[in-house]
Amino acid sequence: MKAPASHHQELRLIPITLRDEIKAGDSVTHKILDGMEGRSLALIPGDILVVKHKIISKAEGQFVDLAKIKPSASSRAWARRYQLDARATELALTQSRRVVRRKRGVLITETRHGFVCANSGVDVSNVDGGSHALLLPKKPDHSAAKIYRELKKRLHLSIPVIISDSFGRPWREGMTEVAIGIAGMKPLEDYRGRRDPRGYKLRVSIDAVADELACAAGLVCGKLARTPACIIRGFRYRPGRGTARELIRPAANDLFR
Amino acid sequence: MKAPASHHQELRLIPITLRDEIKAGDSVTHKILDGMEGRSLALIPGDILVVKHKIISKAEGQFVDLAKIKPSASSRAWARRYQLDARATELALTQSRRVVRRKRGVLITETRHGFVCANSGVDVSNVDGGSHALLLPKKPDHSAAKIYRELKKRLHLSIPVIISDSFGRPWREGMTEVAIGIAGMKPLEDYRGRRDPRGYKLRVSIDAVADELACAAGLVCGKLARTPACIIRGFRYRPGRGTARELIRPAANDLFR
Repeated sequence: MKAPASHHQELRLIPITLRDEIKAGDSVTHKILDGMEGRSLALIPGDILVVKHKIISKAEGQFVDLAKIKPSASSRAWARRYQLDARATELALTQSRRVVRRKRGVLITETRHGFVCANSGVDVSNVDGGSHALLLPKKPDHSAAKIYRELKKRLHLSIPVIISDSFGRPWREGMTEVAIGIAGMKPLEDYRGRRDPRGYKLRVSIDAVADELACAAGLVCGKLARTPACIIRGFRYRPGRGTARELIRPAANDLFR
Repeated sequence: MKAPASHHQELRLIPITLRDEIKAGDSVTHKILDGMEGRSLALIPGDILVVKHKIISKAEGQFVDLAKIKPSASSRAWARRYQLDARATELALTQSRRVVRRKRGVLITETRHGFVCANSGVDVSNVDGGSHALLLPKKPDHSAAKIYRELKKRLHLSIPVIISDSFGRPWREGMTEVAIGIAGMKPLEDYRGRRDPRGYKLRVSIDAVADELACAAGLVCGKLARTPACIIRGFRYRPGRGTARELIRPAANDLFR
């Protein structure tokens, strides 16, 4: 139950600008702390750190040389029909465990992690001019936990970490951010059984707070600026072991898979 | 194009607590300004106002007396099977123009506005102990424009207004906020054709900023507190005539309808 004081609590989103590009082998934690130092920023108890997945993937060396991909005949036909890169299509398929939709040039898959998104989250848009693709982090929860542990060691603080990516959605235009990795907090907030100000029970109300935090972070983590991370200050999160798997609806309960 | 200064810009989410409940006929603008006054809050140029749809629906008297609904045989059978209120099911159907999925007790419809959501957005969970249902605002864009105009008249400021609701999503657990009405700003931010820090063109990247702003607001607009609105300060929005219809993917381009 949130304390009444939280009613008036303001929330701050503080972007973190890195000094330089992230390369394979870099420590994301180090680069983020370094970027914060440059702006005299410091993490304080209660802060949440949101990191765009792209710098995690880069640091973890999740690059694939497209020249080494041999597209199948089916991928070639699909790519030809919709003016796509057949190697990127092939790679998206190898990164998936299920094709959810494949229609009109759009390939929606379920990734090995279980995320449902376009092209298995494979990114060829701005990696080395298009000769390489960037995959999602192998285990985004582990990547988040690593940063969480390193921050704890360096700062003696428990700072929840969310790793975010931009996903499209059925029915609605535009991408929004989602949490693909999490550490140090629960991703869902369950209001069921609690009472609203008038005393009525709130019935079906589970909020995907980790996704909402990722969206909020997306407002300050610019695509064009070098700000792949931000601090969220003032949100009363539920601490604990969380995993981004809690945010994935099991296929058996899903009406759209 | 965002100015370089925005790289370092912090964003603030300031909750607005109302003094009392909203009733049919109330002026939402007045109640919000009144609530702000109580906390010595003031809107400044650049602010965005996000308002939960529920107080809009209440002010506009969008209540339906469930006792007056005569459920069809089909709605009664469906409700019996899944232990639901047949009148609420019937009402959701009358508020829809298309059933997208109806399976395992879940009814996903396309509302008269074009939104795809559960039960046409009809809310029976905490309205008058369940005897009444609360519908979505009739024309949420108009409701937003009304507040926008009233703020302009009262404060001589152009403050974009977003009206938000919590929607569920395929594939992912938990609800997140979406914009169902908007005035004074563009709901989508199109990065296509722009260049990232390394000079590569960003290819497929349209952000649903209005939905991300709604999600951010959802973090401070508590379900349990009387904070159905918030100020978002520091976001570089694109001013202009916007409509929440831009956020709805046309059925013809949608792979999940």
